[in-house]
This record gives sequence, C-alpha cells and structure tokens, in this order.
Amino acid sequence: MNVILLDRHEVIGDAAAISGTRARHIREVLRAATGDHIRIGILDGALGVGLVGAVTPDRIDLTCRWDSDVRPEPRIDLLLALPRPKVLKRLFAQIAALGVRRLMLTNAARVERDYFDTHVLTAECYRPLLIEGLQQARDTRLPTISVHRQFKVLVEDDLARLSPDTLRIVTHPGDNPSLHGLCIGADGRVLIAVGPEGGWNEFELTLLEKAGFARAGMGARPLRSDTACVAVLALANDALGARPV
Amino acid sequence: MNVILLDRHEVIGDAAAISGTRARHIREVLRAATGDHIRIGILDGALGVGLVGAVTPDRIDLTCRWDSDVRPEPRIDLLLALPRPKVLKRLFAQIAALGVRRLMLTNAARVERDYFDTHVLTAECYRPLLIEGLQQARDTRLPTISVHRQFKVLVEDDLARLSPDTLRIVTHPGDNPSLHGLCIGADGRVLIAVGPEGGWNEFELTLLEKAGFARAGMGARPLRSDTACVAVLALANDALGARPV
Repeated sequence: MNVILLDRHEVIGDAAAISGTRARHIREVLRAATGDHIRIGILDGALGVGLVGAVTPDRIDLTCRWDSDVRPEPRIDLLLALPRPKVLKRLFAQIAALGVRRLMLTNAARVERDYFDTHVLTAECYRPLLIEGLQQARDTRLPTISVHRQFKVLVEDDLARLSPDTLRIVTHPGDNPSLHGLCIGADGRVLIAVGPEGGWNEFELTLLEKAGFARAGMGARPLRSDTACVAVLALANDALGARPV
Repeated sequence: MNVILLDRHEVIGDAAAISGTRARHIREVLRAATGDHIRIGILDGALGVGLVGAVTPDRIDLTCRWDSDVRPEPRIDLLLALPRPKVLKRLFAQIAALGVRRLMLTNAARVERDYFDTHVLTAECYRPLLIEGLQQARDTRLPTISVHRQFKVLVEDDLARLSPDTLRIVTHPGDNPSLHGLCIGADGRVLIAVGPEGGWNEFELTLLEKAGFARAGMGARPLRSDTACVAVLALANDALGARPV
C-alpha cells in the first residue's frame, strides 16, 4: 500500500481510527509508531498526511491533514466485453491502479452467458479489489462499475449519458492506426472498447462504428482480456500524458 | 489457445500425435474433426497448419505443414527485480504473450531474500505458463529465463553476454523521458530494467547508469510488478512497431 485509504464516514473532524488490515499494514509493513506521518487519502476525495497517535493491537488513531484539491477523475472510460470471472477478478485492482473513470462490462456474441452469474460482479467482491489498486497507485478515485446485458441498448441509448463527450476508440486486430497515435491528439476524455477474447463480431463492430468509435490496432498478438486491458490503459495513459482534463 | 504448440520431439516427419489438454481443447473448444485444419506451431520454430486425422478419446493425429520461416525472436529483453512468487507466477504467461527474448530475474536491495526459494522459479512451474502465453499470442518463441542472485555481478559482468547490443533503459519514478519516446528511435534490441515495488535504490541506479541504462518514466502511479511489466512491454512493443530486428 502506497497510501492508506479511508472512507468518508471513518473521518470525524480531523480524526480517524483505523483497524483491521490497514492497521496491521501500518504497524508491520510501514512500521509506523506514534508521532510518525503516513500517506493517507479519502475515497473519491483528497490525498493527505496522517499523524499517528495512539497505537493499540486493534486500532490506530490518526490526525488527518488533507491536500486542498480533490484528486481529479481519470480521463479514460473502458467498455469491456465481460471476461471470464477468474480473469475479471484479476483485472479490478489493475484497472483501478492504472486509472479508469468508468468501467462498463457488456455482453457480446462471444461472451459466455453464464459469466453474468458470477459473484465477481457484486460490489462486495470488486470494491475491496478496486481499493487495493488505488492504495497501490496512490489515488483515491474509485472507478464506477456498471453491467450491461444488452450491448445494443448500451451503445445506442446509454453511452451518450454514461460516457459523454469522449473520443471513442475500439481496439480490433488488423492493420489499424495505433491506439497510442489516436490518443495523442485527444484533449478531453477517451472511451476505449475492448472486445472478448474471440473479438467483436461484424454486427458489434458496425454498431460501434456507427456510434463514432474509430478502430485502433494493438499489434499482431491476440492477448487475454486482462493483459489487453493493462496494455490499452498503459498506451492511452502514456499518450494522454496522464494530465487531468 | 490461438495456436496449438508442439515440442520438436512430438513431430516425426510431417506427423504428430497429440494427447492431454491440447487434444481436449481441439475436440471441445475448437470442435475440430477429421479433415479440419487447425493452427499449429513448433516450440522455438515455425507456425503452420495441422490437418486433423484420426480422433480418439485420448489422441488426435495431425499431418503438419510448416511455414518456411522460423518465428523471429522478440526484440525485448527484460531485467526484472524478483517479484513476490504469487505475482511472478501470474506474470510468466503475460510476458510470453507480449514477447520477451530473455527474462533475467535479479536480486535487489528491496527484494525479500526468501522469494528465491519459491518453486515458481523452477522450469516445471514456469515452462507450462510460458507455453500457455505463447498459445494465446500465436507465437512459438519461448523466453529464456535466468535467475541472478548477485545484482552487481549480473550488471557488470554478465549482461554484455546475456543481452548484447541492446539499447538499455531503466524505468524509475520521477520526471524522466517516457519509455515510449526512448524506444521510438531504437533500431535493434532493447533491454528494459524494471525495479522492485519499492524501487531501485541509489546504489543500484548508479550501477545501471554506469552500465549505460537511461532512465525512463512510467507516469506518477506506482504499479505492482506484474502491471508494470505488462505496461512496459505494451509501450515498448508499440514504439518498436513489433518489427523483428
């Protein structure tokens, strides 16, 4: 953990009390004692510094001082054909670490129907994983997760509201312009669609292109969804210069 | 699996017999039957096409036709401070999928000594994972893995032989030139050093810089080793254009 994240309700005035995994991390990994300062953040809020007060086996008291600015939202939204649960589970922390504003998980012809039944799609499962990724990357901004069983409804009706004013890009094998090159010119937010491991089918590609998505290539090697997502986010972040909008 | 990989000793003349996981994949996922063609490859050799012959519950016969060219070696070598075994295990398939010629796993001040005792560092563990990655990415070139307990000996004495004639880059937080930008100009091979999660220390950085490594930045977000490696390889591959040397 490169920052300890607190929920808003855990902070009263400038005081917070921490227990469980985070307290153990502060004691055993950071080896912080009374009087030390540690990096803290508030979920969807600012980063700051915590002065360690009383340390007991099951609780650590902090006095918090917050940066004046709330952390900016990441510039990237991701539309992802629902991967296998095992792959998806591995992906949440990485997505949060790399910075995603909104993750839309969608159906597609080459997505197995029973993937939608997994407990990995419950907030109880993914929220701790997202927080783990933020604590690694020293950010506070939780990605918003939404699940869409109807691809056509998502693309035609919902996208304009969920991901407005974005440069829209769909990754697809073939001799297409590079994702990095397409992102270089973007001033504002970017929405990137990543298909299932078998790829988008023609119907889906046509629908995305009608909705303004430009095709981008990712090289000749077909990648697993989690590897592809990390690659996509690394390339887009680099091209966007990780500047806030 | 986007290609079924065979070991050289499994092919006699143009005939091969496949059993186990690969045979099950051909029957149940590819649903290939007698007379169908499937993509095949020979480890560290060429890609090709296999004509399915007899199919029995525990064996599939193939007649193989190989491309004239052996697959080129990837242009990237990776020098990686040994990650936690759990993280390393996740990384092997991804490294093979993204294309690495040689992976050198090294000690560093911020690497825990007992990481070197893990069974994950045995070929019995990592070889099937590397092959899984190649079968995903439709390549045949197995990364060469080596383990180096003495960082100084590796950098000062062994690198010139293990990774000759490479543009040398070390990723490090801070206001450094982008990795993508540094790789854009490379004609030949590239060697990229990725530190432990706590970063390289000053001694290690100085040693690497003396050995000709240029510092590259990767943005402000500290990443877990596996996420960092996938990001590094995606950026370098994109900048190198995935062209063979």
